[in-house]
Amino acid sequence: MDTRTGLPTVGMVGAGQLARMTHTAAIPLGLSLRVLASSPDDGAALVTSDVEVGDHTSLDDLRRFAKTCDVVTWDHEHVPNAHIVALAADGVDVQPGADALVFAQDKTAMRTKMGELGLPCPEWADLESADDRTDALGAFGERVGWPVVLKAARDGYDGKGVWVIDSVTDAADVLASTTPLLVEEKVAIARELAVDVARSPSGEVAVWPVVETVQRDGICVEVLAPAPGLAAERAAEATGIARTIVEALGVTGVLAVELFETTDGRLVVNELAMRPHNSGHWTIEGARTSQFQQHLRAVLDWPLGSTELLAPATVMVNVLGGAEDPTRPPLDVRLRRTLAARPDVEVHLYGKSWRPGRKVGHVTATGEDPAEVRSRARAAAQLLVEGDDGGS
Amino acid sequence: MDTRTGLPTVGMVGAGQLARMTHTAAIPLGLSLRVLASSPDDGAALVTSDVEVGDHTSLDDLRRFAKTCDVVTWDHEHVPNAHIVALAADGVDVQPGADALVFAQDKTAMRTKMGELGLPCPEWADLESADDRTDALGAFGERVGWPVVLKAARDGYDGKGVWVIDSVTDAADVLASTTPLLVEEKVAIARELAVDVARSPSGEVAVWPVVETVQRDGICVEVLAPAPGLAAERAAEATGIARTIVEALGVTGVLAVELFETTDGRLVVNELAMRPHNSGHWTIEGARTSQFQQHLRAVLDWPLGSTELLAPATVMVNVLGGAEDPTRPPLDVRLRRTLAARPDVEVHLYGKSWRPGRKVGHVTATGEDPAEVRSRARAAAQLLVEGDDGGS
Repeated sequence: MDTRTGLPTVGMVGAGQLARMTHTAAIPLGLSLRVLASSPDDGAALVTSDVEVGDHTSLDDLRRFAKTCDVVTWDHEHVPNAHIVALAADGVDVQPGADALVFAQDKTAMRTKMGELGLPCPEWADLESADDRTDALGAFGERVGWPVVLKAARDGYDGKGVWVIDSVTDAADVLASTTPLLVEEKVAIARELAVDVARSPSGEVAVWPVVETVQRDGICVEVLAPAPGLAAERAAEATGIARTIVEALGVTGVLAVELFETTDGRLVVNELAMRPHNSGHWTIEGARTSQFQQHLRAVLDWPLGSTELLAPATVMVNVLGGAEDPTRPPLDVRLRRTLAARPDVEVHLYGKSWRPGRKVGHVTATGEDPAEVRSRARAAAQLLVEGDDGGS
Repeated sequence: MDTRTGLPTVGMVGAGQLARMTHTAAIPLGLSLRVLASSPDDGAALVTSDVEVGDHTSLDDLRRFAKTCDVVTWDHEHVPNAHIVALAADGVDVQPGADALVFAQDKTAMRTKMGELGLPCPEWADLESADDRTDALGAFGERVGWPVVLKAARDGYDGKGVWVIDSVTDAADVLASTTPLLVEEKVAIARELAVDVARSPSGEVAVWPVVETVQRDGICVEVLAPAPGLAAERAAEATGIARTIVEALGVTGVLAVELFETTDGRLVVNELAMRPHNSGHWTIEGARTSQFQQHLRAVLDWPLGSTELLAPATVMVNVLGGAEDPTRPPLDVRLRRTLAARPDVEVHLYGKSWRPGRKVGHVTATGEDPAEVRSRARAAAQLLVEGDDGGS
């Protein structure tokens, strides 16, 4: 308990944009997020008062950080699971805990668990459990058909740690360099969906409407909320999957369930994330309770907020750093142009340097007509990145 | 320019709730507010990374602070005007500047200026320009009728520095202890209105709809946006007054113009504030652009945002610290109860200790029907203060 405010201190390990936006949501609640940052220049470290610089893979650093927090939660999945077990053994209130988080850290454990729960997944095989990984891969490819998708079981994100391969030969480099690995059927994707859900330690659950996520090169570029033209039964199926997972795995805080809708009409689980997630940024403007406020309420075991939509259509477009271009105006000029040209779009910048392909911000538009809202959000993102709107 | 973000650094002198909420608005814009705090426990100092502790009446402290800011603005009116002149002479970009701010710091200067502009004010007299203050007060009371309102020309706020007096005798203590003083007619108030307006150094002006403010014991307790039942001509008159003031005085940033609507149908200027203001907290949820984001845009000379309403009715209710009561549940319990019972009300806490009568937070509700919205916001504020909703 922070004696200055009479309210608990939430610690977040990691200080990227998720921690930054969680801090923004913490302030009105009278809270102040405490962050364990890799660097004082991390996006959240730039805007929070209570920053400790340390290594999230060091148990000593984690212990020192946790000592001053009433509850500890995560901005990413990269804290070693054994360290989370050790923190809990110390008496630290970790949310989500190690038992749940393992399923967001280890894709093999996740796929195994989804199977036990009877939830739909792509066909898959654990290459590590085979006597010979190459043979097992070959057999899997013959059975489900090439190409297949090789995945690093750990530490993948934004398309990293995922390889589409056409043959055993094609996989040689990955097999030589990466472990542990699993292989999955390459499903024919009609579109990608995501369900964001929150659960508190007491068991209260709140689900936001199902959204469509649009990816390019393995990176989420747009989120359409709610998912356009989604049949009620399909929405209920997706929501049911997310509820089953959040409850069966004992997740606390926000859980994002990424799903594929396949061209042959199936819905299969793709990935899990146990933290605020890119697929839920739209909730800041588009829902009664944002995923960031909800995550705080959930990990504190406070009552959850309403997930009601505030507009018929909300579209979030990610802002990705572009290649260096000396003809492009500087950021402050691009931002001023965007604010002037797009008064009806909300801008969110993360305080990060604009490396190519890096998520450095997002924009959100709300309105009545999904197509109009999407085009408005896209134009704003284009203007913010390029300094002109490409004639749109 | 902050080289880490490529965006300018805004410094705010003072670190109370206005700076705290300005920081919350700064984060999505990629900015990080820098604050000059009286104490590391100030509401904004608890949540910002870039805090300097210093004395806002010390020119040395102000100069040291300003050196690292691209623009300097104010959380309150208590920085000596001569210091602001000195900062500007140093080349500091101060917004608003000393020439404008004097009219929010000195009520005599403000009343004189309003007269020059032909704007409606209560009858008033400057007691300092008289040979004998007591005689001048007596003559003023005889002319306009008792009671009259004595005001300290400087440093009043929230009902402090304002005395309603019935006779010269009644004023003896104030006359003996306070200087400089002015005296005003005690107008018969039908209700109080406020107009919040923003202006950038380039001269762009944006006005929010006129609101009604409800005071108790000289402290604002509620704001109803837009002002219920306000005739279009009356709204245009109030807006016109605010536009005239912001332009004639060269105000930059947010200006709040407090007005009395009198029982005999006049509209008169009461007070000015040149910063985000309690009368504009409703804009966080109720308007397209909040007063806090707008203030940042204005002082940076960035394009201003839309002041469009997001809901037909928005009501803000201040949360005031109550008397010590050992039977009242602690803040975290009261907050949890409020969040659970009132999912459709937004809570804003300022990180301050709950001294009686002190503004420690506010709640905001939006909706269709002003009466319903008001009752919902009141019930939430009651629950947050008392821990029960008083049966509502």
